[in-house]
Amino acid sequence: MPMKKFINAPENLTAELLEGFALAFSHKITLQGKTVLRATPKSQDKVALVTLGGAGHEPALSGFVGPGMLDASVVGDIFAAPGVPAVLAALQATGRKAGTLLVILNHAGDVMAGNMAFEMATQQGLKVQKVLTHEDISAGRDAPLENRRGLVGCIPLYKIAGAAAEAGKSLEEVVAIAERFSENLRTLAVAVSPATHPASGGVIGAIADDEMEVGMGQHGEGGGGIMKLASADETAKIMLDKLLDTLAVQAGDQLLVLVNGSGATTLMEQYLVLRAVKKLLDARGLIMARSLVGEFLTVQEMGGFQMCVAKLDDELIELYDAPCDTPSLTVK
Amino acid sequence: MPMKKFINAPENLTAELLEGFALAFSHKITLQGKTVLRATPKSQDKVALVTLGGAGHEPALSGFVGPGMLDASVVGDIFAAPGVPAVLAALQATGRKAGTLLVILNHAGDVMAGNMAFEMATQQGLKVQKVLTHEDISAGRDAPLENRRGLVGCIPLYKIAGAAAEAGKSLEEVVAIAERFSENLRTLAVAVSPATHPASGGVIGAIADDEMEVGMGQHGEGGGGIMKLASADETAKIMLDKLLDTLAVQAGDQLLVLVNGSGATTLMEQYLVLRAVKKLLDARGLIMARSLVGEFLTVQEMGGFQMCVAKLDDELIELYDAPCDTPSLTVK
Repeated sequence: MPMKKFINAPENLTAELLEGFALAFSHKITLQGKTVLRATPKSQDKVALVTLGGAGHEPALSGFVGPGMLDASVVGDIFAAPGVPAVLAALQATGRKAGTLLVILNHAGDVMAGNMAFEMATQQGLKVQKVLTHEDISAGRDAPLENRRGLVGCIPLYKIAGAAAEAGKSLEEVVAIAERFSENLRTLAVAVSPATHPASGGVIGAIADDEMEVGMGQHGEGGGGIMKLASADETAKIMLDKLLDTLAVQAGDQLLVLVNGSGATTLMEQYLVLRAVKKLLDARGLIMARSLVGEFLTVQEMGGFQMCVAKLDDELIELYDAPCDTPSLTVK
Repeated sequence: MPMKKFINAPENLTAELLEGFALAFSHKITLQGKTVLRATPKSQDKVALVTLGGAGHEPALSGFVGPGMLDASVVGDIFAAPGVPAVLAALQATGRKAGTLLVILNHAGDVMAGNMAFEMATQQGLKVQKVLTHEDISAGRDAPLENRRGLVGCIPLYKIAGAAAEAGKSLEEVVAIAERFSENLRTLAVAVSPATHPASGGVIGAIADDEMEVGMGQHGEGGGGIMKLASADETAKIMLDKLLDTLAVQAGDQLLVLVNGSGATTLMEQYLVLRAVKKLLDARGLIMARSLVGEFLTVQEMGGFQMCVAKLDDELIELYDAPCDTPSLTVK
């Protein structure tokens, strides 16, 4: 069966999608090679935020470049890390006395490219700090770091760290806030149908007709948790229980809940999942202080979603609520 | 094969999804039965905007309730029009001396419910006007009105009419603006894979492995334009040519281009389509003055998209650019 995607030559896919993205949001972002920058740069006395990652997960990561979130997103090819020179160039372009925070999602290629560019930038005298997101709990919180992937939790982290930077906090303060949020951040994915690699046409993963898989990675790589299909309420309970098992929470704690559609799972279903989570949290005396529902980090047309919870404190809530104006998230 | 959707009891689907939606956006909207209202009502001296339509198309239509767009969205069951009493109740709830504009998408059930509620509200002395959107060109612009469906073009119409209402224009002025936009609005859909009815589990429509269908309706009903799968560039050209054939445009005219993902077609592909449209418009000397890309009106997990173009004038552009703050579209 031929791939049913509207693309042109696969080798031009990333360049073309970025061109279309830049056309759609020419008032908000600008393109420098395959790096997405804010159309109007942030003032030099504020900390800059830079991230990196492969294409194919739209709107992530570049959909979150703009006031209150990211200053630059360095884009790799489909599901592939960008090269070190591109990441270094972004750190140079955003270089400033106030410093730059580089946010790296925990995937081997991104970590390698991010770390190398970080070292080189530091050697060149640039003031840079980095934060690694690694909130996937599918392998367990005690698993080796390389098995704890960075999933959709990067999006609220950009939001919170970006607000701290916009508020004029120092690089050390922004790092501390990002780390505090990251430490209290947990994500788990579930998939019901696979994704197609848009360049190769290959189908990634396979899930039986009556099954779902809990713990899938960003590209459909197996999570091992194969189980029978379940309802919205049952699936929400399975996932939330696993997430809360790994997070020290007690009655009265305030949580952020993020339900992120992977591609083919509808917003309708995501709302049902959020509804179920709210009831489960109520029963535990936990407070759903904030929620975010929609497609933020997709895996092509994969069916399924990521559920992300984070423990918030008053300062994190204030930062989360601060205004932002990006292609894919605007808060007044 | 069992349906791979995260739902609970099908008979509760609409109520539950609205409950989840209201939880996610409790700061923006409120629920009265199955009608979505602004959390903070608009001042009584401004025209209200009300619309109606079935669930299952999230984020449409209720995702666009808020300052600068809709005042109320009356929600029916999955793919079904709401009842007359609910529409009448919404017209009563938003009733005001300034008047209310009821926007109806051209689908038999919606038209019947909308028209009946409109008549009853008028008999009760409420000041109401209505506008019908019917911009689908798949049956031809000369086709009987019942074959010219209202598709995703309602979203920019809500935006423009909503901005006019927010600016304090009279009901007559808001109607005239909505009609002027509607007259210059055209939409065409293409599908590559079918949707599943989330309550019945039935698959709607069937498309061969190597084919796509141009002209599909809101629920996957046939458009008749079956053709071989094509690239992003080719598909954009096929669709844009058909759209522009029905719209009186000349070099220098300013257009709005909307690319609306139906469900499983990625944002990545939608950006490629926008890029192709821009090149085609450039070649004709037409100006892509504004563009909007993403999932606004979906058909569950259908693969495909709707392409919508509208001729703009300076006043329409100004209204289109005005601020709004809704669950699914925020403009600063």
